[in-house]
Amino acid sequence: MAVGHYPFPQMAPVPGVRWGVASAGIKKEGRKDLVVMALAENSRVAGVFTQNIFCAAPVVVAKDHMAQGNIRFLLINSGNANACTGDEGLADARLSCNKLAEHAGVKGNQVLPFSTGVIGERMPMARLLAALPQAVESLSENGWADAAEGIMTTDTRAKGAAVQFEFEGETIVVNGIAKGSGMIKPNMATMLGYIATNANISQPLLDLLAKKAADQSFNRISVDGDTSTNDACMLIATGQTTLPEVNSTQGELFAKLYNAIVSVHIQLAQSIVSDGEGATKFVTVQVEGAQDKPEALKVAYSVAQSPLVKTALFASDPNWGRIVAAIGYSGVEGMVAETINVWLDNVLIVEKGCRAASYSEEQGQAVMDRDEIMIRVDLGRGKSKERVWTTDLSHEYVTINAEYRS
Amino acid sequence: MAVGHYPFPQMAPVPGVRWGVASAGIKKEGRKDLVVMALAENSRVAGVFTQNIFCAAPVVVAKDHMAQGNIRFLLINSGNANACTGDEGLADARLSCNKLAEHAGVKGNQVLPFSTGVIGERMPMARLLAALPQAVESLSENGWADAAEGIMTTDTRAKGAAVQFEFEGETIVVNGIAKGSGMIKPNMATMLGYIATNANISQPLLDLLAKKAADQSFNRISVDGDTSTNDACMLIATGQTTLPEVNSTQGELFAKLYNAIVSVHIQLAQSIVSDGEGATKFVTVQVEGAQDKPEALKVAYSVAQSPLVKTALFASDPNWGRIVAAIGYSGVEGMVAETINVWLDNVLIVEKGCRAASYSEEQGQAVMDRDEIMIRVDLGRGKSKERVWTTDLSHEYVTINAEYRS
Repeated sequence: MAVGHYPFPQMAPVPGVRWGVASAGIKKEGRKDLVVMALAENSRVAGVFTQNIFCAAPVVVAKDHMAQGNIRFLLINSGNANACTGDEGLADARLSCNKLAEHAGVKGNQVLPFSTGVIGERMPMARLLAALPQAVESLSENGWADAAEGIMTTDTRAKGAAVQFEFEGETIVVNGIAKGSGMIKPNMATMLGYIATNANISQPLLDLLAKKAADQSFNRISVDGDTSTNDACMLIATGQTTLPEVNSTQGELFAKLYNAIVSVHIQLAQSIVSDGEGATKFVTVQVEGAQDKPEALKVAYSVAQSPLVKTALFASDPNWGRIVAAIGYSGVEGMVAETINVWLDNVLIVEKGCRAASYSEEQGQAVMDRDEIMIRVDLGRGKSKERVWTTDLSHEYVTINAEYRS
Repeated sequence: MAVGHYPFPQMAPVPGVRWGVASAGIKKEGRKDLVVMALAENSRVAGVFTQNIFCAAPVVVAKDHMAQGNIRFLLINSGNANACTGDEGLADARLSCNKLAEHAGVKGNQVLPFSTGVIGERMPMARLLAALPQAVESLSENGWADAAEGIMTTDTRAKGAAVQFEFEGETIVVNGIAKGSGMIKPNMATMLGYIATNANISQPLLDLLAKKAADQSFNRISVDGDTSTNDACMLIATGQTTLPEVNSTQGELFAKLYNAIVSVHIQLAQSIVSDGEGATKFVTVQVEGAQDKPEALKVAYSVAQSPLVKTALFASDPNWGRIVAAIGYSGVEGMVAETINVWLDNVLIVEKGCRAASYSEEQGQAVMDRDEIMIRVDLGRGKSKERVWTTDLSHEYVTINAEYRS
């Protein structure tokens, strides 16, 4: 199931980016599961990777190759995560880079590998390698939608976002695709994300943008609180424009670029939440009046990750006592109930720590019946604010995760 | 649903303790929902209370009365938590103490109130007060089983544990009852627990024992990671014995008493987990080889609270990759995958961070098919060890929590 409407957008090409897709039969026959992203010469690549200490073989190899620079290809497979596979897994990841490089006439360390799927099983290398030529032959500037499909695992829909703007007569395009629907939590979500622009951005600024944009998007979502071994979000600037290099956070071009890149990240992150495993609600938890941002986030995640809050959301039950309980056990030092207000959308439900006098069950029910719900908490002890996006916890979540693999 | 067999035990009376039960119709007509515990003069009472900052009115009043000493009655209701009910809720809790005290010929501050049930609704005081006389009239030394039933909410079975031992010709009895099946997590679980002995224990030692025993039992269980506003675990020593007062942690009598009290606590905590909402598995997560206990606990809870691990357990799927991922994102500073081993019962599944060479899916499946499962993790970086108990995450958990209240 999935909530809301997120049709795959029309996407103009990003000059300098081509996608190729093939069906290698990694987990299932006939499914698009092998994706190649080809970058024009002199493209710059930045990325944010999983913080799980069991990071998968492709993550190790990708970080290693990134550090050497001059990346020309990304090679992504779904169906098998190549995680917890030891030295063999590392060798498999390197071999797939080398084989793609051979075929394309570059070096192995100019390829970044990415994998998503089941953990702890060896990659079916013969099938993967056999499908490489087909993926390379299909490279096209118009492959964004196919690529979005090829990286899916339990996703029910392909996820894409695109923003364009004009600057001094030139068109700057920012496109992104992503996958992810379970194991979603900050630092990072279980997800792969590829965002590319034809803008010319210096490497240090691109690195900064990758981190900043991920922090405002993929690091603010939670489906089930789990973090995978394979997460990666890549930001690519091909520089295929006559506009000058952007190398500082000053100026109008940077501002436009920043907004476009962050917007694409947030749209992708929200589409992941809305496609959260078994999701029937899209929920924003906003915490304000905190002393600092970590405190606001702590409370927001405490609410967003509470199974009792999430099952109440699934039942469309305005059981605000569970929201209050989750705020109360979030563990913020010195927080007191008496300064806390809570709203469901615009309905004040808790005032100064108690049920609001004006609140009626009918008001709460009216909000809960919606597909998109905002839980807003004012801690009344400062000026900091944070916002996270999450889903409800449904029967289908249990079904999907009890049956995945079988 | 519930896992395993936990028949309510035979319980000898604890000299100095009587229980009375009535049906007040607080949430449902005809259900036992009002419980009075009467203590002999000079009984001593210790307790551990919720750390949720939204602690309920009865918790506030109970702590206040505890501080004044000389407690003679505990008054417990199920069906309504009297939480987030503001000044009216406090007045209701105090009034119920005063009315019981009046009826029983003691002072209001010699009564401790406890409530469990829905948050944020006023207590139906007329019905509660009307049933008080009936509860007092039914006071009996043999009321343990009735009391265990009267404090239940979503519990599917009454929970009790009893241990006796002989010392210098005298019988020391330790009995306990508890309730709780959801909102279960450390500090404290959503639970009420009442453990009483006829031993004579000094107040400072009793306070210490209450904390130590809770830490080894109720603070080591997790069903859904939520912590309620109303948790309390009370330890009572009536002193109805000719044995001398125990006032130090030295000597044989203390050792026997300590073991008996901790054993009753652990049995109750385990019976709460095994009756966890929708539970089909009883799972022990043991983490050893940690640098210190907080680190071991962090990893243990990361595994025990992972929805992906819990749904795999529900499906009896030896999807050990999810266990490894949960260890990996637990956030322990400096931990590396290469020193970590993981077992399912006695089956080595992960060796030095990789799938064990000796492991086969059949071995994992054989363990997963059991009702009681041990997940054992050796971090390989120290000598500390911790253990927590948890359940799987099933369809029935979602059903119960989506439908509770409606």
